[in-house]
Amino acid sequence: MSTQTDAATAPRTEPIDSNQVDVGEERLTPLGAALRAAADGTYGEVRAGMRTLLVRDALTRDPGMSISEAREWTRTAIRAIADSGRGGAGFPTSVGGDGLLASSVVNFESLALADLSLTVKVGVHFGLFGGAIASLGTEEQLQEFVPRVISLDLPGAYAMTEVGHGSNVQALETTITYDRDTDELVVHSPTESATKTYIGNAAEDARMAVVYGQLEVAGQNHGIHAVLVPVRDEAGAALPGVTIGDNGAKGGLDGVDNGTLRFDGVRVARTMLLSRYGGVNDSGSYHSSIDNQNRRFFTMLGTLVRGRICVSGAGGQAARKALSIATRYALQRRQFDAPGRDGEVLLLDYLAHQRKLLPAIATAYALAFAQNELTDTLQEVQSRPVGERDQKAQRELETRAAGMKAVSTRFANDVIQVCREACGGAGYMAENGLTELRRDADVFATFEGDNTVLLQLVAKGLLTNYKEMWGDLDMLGMVQAAARTFTGTVIERTAARPAIERILATAQRRSDAETVLERSWHVTMFEEREQHVLDSLAQRMRTAGRDESRAFEAFNATQDHLLLAARAHIDRVVLESFIAGIDACEDEETAAVLNRLCDLYALENLAGDRGWFQEHGRMSAARAKAIVPAINQLCQELRPLALPLVEGMGVPEQLLGSAMLEG
Amino acid sequence: MSTQTDAATAPRTEPIDSNQVDVGEERLTPLGAALRAAADGTYGEVRAGMRTLLVRDALTRDPGMSISEAREWTRTAIRAIADSGRGGAGFPTSVGGDGLLASSVVNFESLALADLSLTVKVGVHFGLFGGAIASLGTEEQLQEFVPRVISLDLPGAYAMTEVGHGSNVQALETTITYDRDTDELVVHSPTESATKTYIGNAAEDARMAVVYGQLEVAGQNHGIHAVLVPVRDEAGAALPGVTIGDNGAKGGLDGVDNGTLRFDGVRVARTMLLSRYGGVNDSGSYHSSIDNQNRRFFTMLGTLVRGRICVSGAGGQAARKALSIATRYALQRRQFDAPGRDGEVLLLDYLAHQRKLLPAIATAYALAFAQNELTDTLQEVQSRPVGERDQKAQRELETRAAGMKAVSTRFANDVIQVCREACGGAGYMAENGLTELRRDADVFATFEGDNTVLLQLVAKGLLTNYKEMWGDLDMLGMVQAAARTFTGTVIERTAARPAIERILATAQRRSDAETVLERSWHVTMFEEREQHVLDSLAQRMRTAGRDESRAFEAFNATQDHLLLAARAHIDRVVLESFIAGIDACEDEETAAVLNRLCDLYALENLAGDRGWFQEHGRMSAARAKAIVPAINQLCQELRPLALPLVEGMGVPEQLLGSAMLEG
Repeated sequence: MSTQTDAATAPRTEPIDSNQVDVGEERLTPLGAALRAAADGTYGEVRAGMRTLLVRDALTRDPGMSISEAREWTRTAIRAIADSGRGGAGFPTSVGGDGLLASSVVNFESLALADLSLTVKVGVHFGLFGGAIASLGTEEQLQEFVPRVISLDLPGAYAMTEVGHGSNVQALETTITYDRDTDELVVHSPTESATKTYIGNAAEDARMAVVYGQLEVAGQNHGIHAVLVPVRDEAGAALPGVTIGDNGAKGGLDGVDNGTLRFDGVRVARTMLLSRYGGVNDSGSYHSSIDNQNRRFFTMLGTLVRGRICVSGAGGQAARKALSIATRYALQRRQFDAPGRDGEVLLLDYLAHQRKLLPAIATAYALAFAQNELTDTLQEVQSRPVGERDQKAQRELETRAAGMKAVSTRFANDVIQVCREACGGAGYMAENGLTELRRDADVFATFEGDNTVLLQLVAKGLLTNYKEMWGDLDMLGMVQAAARTFTGTVIERTAARPAIERILATAQRRSDAETVLERSWHVTMFEEREQHVLDSLAQRMRTAGRDESRAFEAFNATQDHLLLAARAHIDRVVLESFIAGIDACEDEETAAVLNRLCDLYALENLAGDRGWFQEHGRMSAARAKAIVPAINQLCQELRPLALPLVEGMGVPEQLLGSAMLEG
Repeated sequence: MSTQTDAATAPRTEPIDSNQVDVGEERLTPLGAALRAAADGTYGEVRAGMRTLLVRDALTRDPGMSISEAREWTRTAIRAIADSGRGGAGFPTSVGGDGLLASSVVNFESLALADLSLTVKVGVHFGLFGGAIASLGTEEQLQEFVPRVISLDLPGAYAMTEVGHGSNVQALETTITYDRDTDELVVHSPTESATKTYIGNAAEDARMAVVYGQLEVAGQNHGIHAVLVPVRDEAGAALPGVTIGDNGAKGGLDGVDNGTLRFDGVRVARTMLLSRYGGVNDSGSYHSSIDNQNRRFFTMLGTLVRGRICVSGAGGQAARKALSIATRYALQRRQFDAPGRDGEVLLLDYLAHQRKLLPAIATAYALAFAQNELTDTLQEVQSRPVGERDQKAQRELETRAAGMKAVSTRFANDVIQVCREACGGAGYMAENGLTELRRDADVFATFEGDNTVLLQLVAKGLLTNYKEMWGDLDMLGMVQAAARTFTGTVIERTAARPAIERILATAQRRSDAETVLERSWHVTMFEEREQHVLDSLAQRMRTAGRDESRAFEAFNATQDHLLLAARAHIDRVVLESFIAGIDACEDEETAAVLNRLCDLYALENLAGDRGWFQEHGRMSAARAKAIVPAINQLCQELRPLALPLVEGMGVPEQLLGSAMLEG
């Protein structure tokens, strides 16, 4: 950008190895390609295929579009996805799908490289609407509806949230009442606060919605169920009894038509109730394979797990895209002279700039490995028929998905903002790709589960050692469940178990400065943090559980502790995933770079809690003091590798949509 | 919102005192009114007047507007401000102004309560364009141009930033060349990277611009100067030689027409050079009252100080507006049942929610007091004629303005996002007022000085004890200046000196849990942090300064330390301002509440650095451990006062522009 730029005077901007290699539509440094292969995980080929398609289709949206233009663009793009036959990802083969849950997650994640409105629209229609039918419907319902979902002939919405009820799904007011006389279900919104809101696809496109409400049969409430309700006719007009509103301008996702739905005694056939776990039989009585109403509710909600994994993944990709833009900019933008250097200094040569971007890149890698492991686990757990699933594994998956979604989207929001600021005034121009990304990813913090609520679910899973159903989302049930089931928390290791045991076995005593770079020390710190926070939380919970009359106050007093426990757990899981990923990497040079990144991730994480570690006697002052210098040192070491590190994050340069990088 | 809401069951939502009082267009609780009076500071009457005007004019913008609609709305609004005679704030009385610099700052801050695009447009035209003429122009130039600025007959732009040169103003490429033959100045953009960019008012409205460039007279460069250049004719068409571009969609501030300006040998009369500090005389020679070119440059740039104080203030107001919206929402929104409570629990009754909002409210108060003190200092220092100003006081003011701008806008960006998330899905809807606020305030982090660069300037001011001009914005000069001038850092107390000495004199030994609530301990911790960080930084700088050849590397290695020093300094200044503000508050009950808020501010701040304090032997583990429980306790104590605390922040309910609060 600067006229004083002289590439020859800035040797560290050169890629380390100029023998670039072709990877799909890109040319990468060999190290960049190798890092990408490692970070791509099990479904590397699916990812690679998606990247090629996205680059060829040039699926990036002009940020200057109006809301109606953005919606039209998104509508056209999702139509193209369906027409190209890519709508079957994740659906059972029996109804035209590819039978691979993981592929739908990877597709969703990959779309996030291109445009988040499109990603979310795809997620709403195929993932939530289609996914609810596939998970909650009977075989007949799948046969009838899923093919039309895959082809997009039946655009759908997922109507769960109500004006008065966001996180507290069990309190939904919408009623689904069985009318024995006509053998129909009557869907009704009894109050203003029962209005469904923020429903993606509702404002303009959906023909049908999966509607959640209280099922009543013969005067008896059977709790939350989901029913298919046609909402628009072929011409796009709202059907009788259905009132559709438009949420209008939002903080982002301009291409998604979020809207409101109200039902005034809308009648649908009994067979429209998604009845895999509970329904009304031919004689008009309620039946369910799950007697306990609470358990039934959480089994149904368990189908949300994929959505959360998808959002976690999309958050990770959005962060990587922002980091790719900001780091590439920092490799070309110069500001201020320095003696001994011709021309101005590259932004990425400033320590403060390195500290903004490089630890974040390390965290992005860490989360990528953890996301891969989560996707693998989803595939493993849910590919079995429901009846044969390991219930504990399912709950552990739900817990981890909730936690990863919270941590990954928090990271995305924070880091995109850091990236936008790291690009100065240019970062604020929409044409440079960061501000729209920031707007779009923002909602990830609160949709598919509010992050604060999700972290509490994680804590509950840990406290009950996954033995209890989630039950009682009111958070208080947690205190009681914890008090009931707690027998001593045990940290269960992830897939990284063998690698970690090897690491711990070979640990040696060293100086503080050396120790902070020891993986065994990182593992120990992450584990001790989780174990101690969890043990002390369980202790407080047991005491709190004793006095029913002050149960809310007692729970409430531990809420920050609970959130800390959840984060400490997820952080440890992420570190272990990173270690397992490195362990699986066969190329020595690549593994060495990943190890440096893992050091940086671990230290950046520990630096944030070094107050806690010292307070709890887990870290000496001398050692805590050695952390920041070690971070600075790692930044300096990784600085020359910035370009391959960016390439390894897997965002094709063609999709960055950043005018300043082309200037 | 929820149908289950029953006000009678939630006693803590009631205002403490139902004898509401009339304050301007509002009805407030007595405590809210008293807190507001304290937080309004010296210019309380000006603020009150502005609130009344803003409420009456209903100056809030529909967030669903397109960019062109938003620009039109803003254009109409600024015209109304000029027509109502409010454009003279801050200009000398000799040319039609009110002669009160502080009133322009307070007006700017107040406008931020209504709409940030309007605020920035006002800032660009009256503050930057008009302010540059008033500060850098001769008496004749003021007489000629300022009245037309005040009346808005001459809409103006402030053209400093270039494509290739943002923070590094001394490297600007635009040339202003004196042509002796015609007695004219030739303004020219020699390269693409010399194009002026992000210039507010340039894309559509400005008729004239203050253009910064390198002044050349008779082949000699005299450094950066500013010249008035007409850019559009009466009909709005670009003048010959001027190429105007539109920056288009941005991350926010849709109502501001930012654009680019290129000059192709544009000629203006010699008298258009703003010549107070340097110009070309009748015989065609350069003259200046300041011989040293560097000193001249920084004297000219010193006029930027008001802009930074304005942005700092606007950031503070934006944060208070977001906190007002989110806290009021948390006082009406309920989610999840709890035993012993009828209906669902109010969001603000959850500890996690209190922790998101209440410490931020405490910080908002702290920054309000610091902002007031800064404005008072501006008025005091700059109301004297330039020649008679205390140079050290001027540099201290510049330093503090830079630091407050960085800290206040960082806080604004972070807290608005917290508020948006604290309102869940509703927070993401543009009609609820948070997302636009977030978009608009975003740019505060990088305009009027990039925050990272500004904090480095603060550190330099401290290291040189304000003895040196800022010089050498390349940051390296800092190392050298510090090495030259450093004789031992001394923390100089602010206006709070007497109050603080009283506090320190009465300090007593207490238990850890009691000590963390002692103001004397807070003061000691804030002071020791600043002193130690600064001393050790100075030590490193001296060592670094010894080897010229590795000067950049040495400077660079201390960059994070430098930023920490700047922050520690500003934090201490903010705490002292808070203490001085409480000391000035004569009402006992109000002062007691402010003292609780000050505790919360101090502890929230110390909690973030408790790792550092333990590492440096400044805090025992036991005491560090007592901080978070004390924060939780303070949250619980302040929870019942939430409404008055919000009222005290001074954002009229009528200006919140949040549909969900009216529902």
